[in-house]
Amino acid sequence: MAKVLTSRKENYSQWYNDLVIKADLAENSAVRGCMVIKPYGYAIWEKMQAVLDRMFKDTGHSNAYFPLFIPKSFLSREADHVEGFAKECAVVTHYRLKSSPSGGIEVDETAKLEEELVIRPTSETIIWNTYKNWIQSYRDLPLLINQWANVVRWEMRTRLFLRTAEFLWQEGHTAHATREEAMEETIKMLGVYADFAKEWMAMPVIKGVKTENERFAGAVETYSIEALMQDGKALQSGTSHFLGQNFAKAFDVTFLDKTGKLEHVWASSWGVSTRLMGALIMAHSDDNGLVLPPKLAPIQVVIVPIYKKTEELAVIDERVEVIRKSLIASGISVKYDNRDTHKPGWKFAEYELKGVPLRLAIGPRDIENRSVEVARRDTLEKKIYPVEGIADTVKALLDEIQDGIYKKALDFRDNNTFRADSYEEFREIIASRGGFVLAHWDGTRETEEKINQETKATIRCIPLDPVMEEGKCIVTGKPSPRRVYFAKAY
Amino acid sequence: MAKVLTSRKENYSQWYNDLVIKADLAENSAVRGCMVIKPYGYAIWEKMQAVLDRMFKDTGHSNAYFPLFIPKSFLSREADHVEGFAKECAVVTHYRLKSSPSGGIEVDETAKLEEELVIRPTSETIIWNTYKNWIQSYRDLPLLINQWANVVRWEMRTRLFLRTAEFLWQEGHTAHATREEAMEETIKMLGVYADFAKEWMAMPVIKGVKTENERFAGAVETYSIEALMQDGKALQSGTSHFLGQNFAKAFDVTFLDKTGKLEHVWASSWGVSTRLMGALIMAHSDDNGLVLPPKLAPIQVVIVPIYKKTEELAVIDERVEVIRKSLIASGISVKYDNRDTHKPGWKFAEYELKGVPLRLAIGPRDIENRSVEVARRDTLEKKIYPVEGIADTVKALLDEIQDGIYKKALDFRDNNTFRADSYEEFREIIASRGGFVLAHWDGTRETEEKINQETKATIRCIPLDPVMEEGKCIVTGKPSPRRVYFAKAY
Repeated sequence: MAKVLTSRKENYSQWYNDLVIKADLAENSAVRGCMVIKPYGYAIWEKMQAVLDRMFKDTGHSNAYFPLFIPKSFLSREADHVEGFAKECAVVTHYRLKSSPSGGIEVDETAKLEEELVIRPTSETIIWNTYKNWIQSYRDLPLLINQWANVVRWEMRTRLFLRTAEFLWQEGHTAHATREEAMEETIKMLGVYADFAKEWMAMPVIKGVKTENERFAGAVETYSIEALMQDGKALQSGTSHFLGQNFAKAFDVTFLDKTGKLEHVWASSWGVSTRLMGALIMAHSDDNGLVLPPKLAPIQVVIVPIYKKTEELAVIDERVEVIRKSLIASGISVKYDNRDTHKPGWKFAEYELKGVPLRLAIGPRDIENRSVEVARRDTLEKKIYPVEGIADTVKALLDEIQDGIYKKALDFRDNNTFRADSYEEFREIIASRGGFVLAHWDGTRETEEKINQETKATIRCIPLDPVMEEGKCIVTGKPSPRRVYFAKAY
Repeated sequence: MAKVLTSRKENYSQWYNDLVIKADLAENSAVRGCMVIKPYGYAIWEKMQAVLDRMFKDTGHSNAYFPLFIPKSFLSREADHVEGFAKECAVVTHYRLKSSPSGGIEVDETAKLEEELVIRPTSETIIWNTYKNWIQSYRDLPLLINQWANVVRWEMRTRLFLRTAEFLWQEGHTAHATREEAMEETIKMLGVYADFAKEWMAMPVIKGVKTENERFAGAVETYSIEALMQDGKALQSGTSHFLGQNFAKAFDVTFLDKTGKLEHVWASSWGVSTRLMGALIMAHSDDNGLVLPPKLAPIQVVIVPIYKKTEELAVIDERVEVIRKSLIASGISVKYDNRDTHKPGWKFAEYELKGVPLRLAIGPRDIENRSVEVARRDTLEKKIYPVEGIADTVKALLDEIQDGIYKKALDFRDNNTFRADSYEEFREIIASRGGFVLAHWDGTRETEEKINQETKATIRCIPLDPVMEEGKCIVTGKPSPRRVYFAKAY
């Protein structure tokens, strides 16, 4: 069977696009930069949502919903925020269409909004304007709220999941009585993201703080988790911001503290988006298609019958029914594909493309031997197992795959994390190999920008738990207390 | 304690608004017509979503996501559709803001869209434009897709949950090979909504078909479920549309049928929205606040300690922990409110306002007697029960409440469903009592409009399982095969 995907080696970027389309994850829509998330892709996103939502609730957060629209004037309230987002805002100016004399419809100019509305690119402003009424005293704090929503940032160059004009995300917005509490929350939620990436996506990430250059518009500090993709580029996969009192001041949100003093409220915000789908796709997949971590796979096991005669299928159907039931009873999601419209080889390729972790094949000989052929998606290995105890076998294999692909991704990252002690060495690595480069930096914006202009690499983060090591900036030779992570990035 | 709500008798509409605000369900936002759904309100919506989502999946549907934006020209493709929605569309005309010379920010006129984008008021057009590429042959059918999303309809008069410019909803969009299948789906999903209303919301509904006047813009037939509120007004709570081939023709979606003939695809669409929250609130609540069906209550049981001395609280805490654990083990959601900042009376009123189905109070005497006082939110009855077997007691009471409030709502509806055999009688009932009025109608648009102009009542629906009964139209005296439901409506 012909390969349906461009290989990674040939053209990594084309491989990614092919994969997203061919595995039925998403496609471009008729609206510039906006995607359609197809049922199979959405099923993965739903699994991610469900786990994250549980993690947020377990850490004390509640969901709520705030308007899609933000009055234009709200954006201007926080100077850095408007600077960061104004250039990519979709703007609603009218609220009615009318029939056009030339046929079709046109904007009704008599229905012009007094103040234009922006489609939320993020919701700090509308939310802090609301919090003003919710917070009077320290008793109203902390306020721990999350929102699942769509947001719009008018990006010029878009890529499915990785950068789209509209995307789905969650945004946490918390309010606290003290700087320490807000900072603790910021770091705690970064930890939740890192745990999710590791435990569920099987994706190792670096936790760190962003440089001023890469900080969220309006934040005092931005923290992120950074993952390494197979092409050696980094992907920022989630951010958590310590907002200080910036938005409280912009929207005049104060509270009476325990001593009766009026203070501005402290804040955090944090978010992950459908961009995680891009990370998940690129973290583990290969030239045959998607490789999904079992914990997030919509279908964990597919069963394919192998037969020539209809009588054989009847016997296989019966055996499969027993297997299927025992797997379901163990909480495993199973699909039995006994369609007679497609050959087994076609089905094998199809479920490989879609990243189903385990494929069970059963033919007449398996019926005789009470056996089943099990193929692992991650290693592509096949092995015969007895039907007896199949649920335990499958469970153990799914765990093995979950662990295995994490370890593989971790090994990949370790093998693609380099140390550079001179700018020459740094440029050589970035240009030829990619990956993370740990290097000393003098802490200035100028040096960071020079490196970016000359090599396209950016500082991904200053690691949260660094090895403290005195050194000299690779560019200026000025002193540096520890290495930071550089990489080219998505 | 002073009543926090206007009574229903005094001013039903004010009672509703008070309740939504005071029970922390939602509030108006800074954006005209858009609401903020607060955590407690959102928690109820999440429960509704989870159940409906399960029901959709159990009937074979998958979720997906389509763009928020609809190119203006798409709307015009289906003549009735554009006629119905053009007047309430929010229109995006620009994609960038810039600093204003006078300070603040303004729309960047150089960033004008070539074609304006409408915020989806509903997604038939963008979805059928997408389906065109997904459907080639009968093998691609049926396509059973649902989307959870926000939509915008620029309403002039808005009310929290009942009618807002932006609202949250789900919209099912299905494609079929035959008229019969599409019609079967339309009716099936109406049934899902009716079951959900009955089994989960404890709200009886009438299933019926809408008259041409009230049909969804672009549908061949619109079916709805109609509920009766306590003020005698009807609330359309969900709709399911048989779209025929209207959208398939508008977007040229054809398929090769089994005989190799090219045919247009048949369609249904169906939706319920955060309007259901309004229905739920009004269906059961009273002058003390919200009454929630236990199956949808975020907190099913609240426990309040009654004590004077701190030592007493320590003992109560210990007993409560045992009770709490046994309730949780039975799948019951429990909150223990032992805050010392509020008195028991305040807490009682608070949880009554919020509609918590059962309140358990435990004082020193209960500790001695191994008893607990249980108060039902629906009847406000209190009774002492032994701690032994409390989980079973609570479970049984929750079931009783769920059944009881359904029965109460059904009795209310039965007692407020009238038959009118003359127009005079009809006008008298509508003006003085409200409720549903079953009357004969000649089937014409003119008569329906006359009745509406003169009485404000509309035909809510032609019931799906009517008692066939020959009669004469109350206005024109022309023959009618069965009575239809009239009411004033939200």
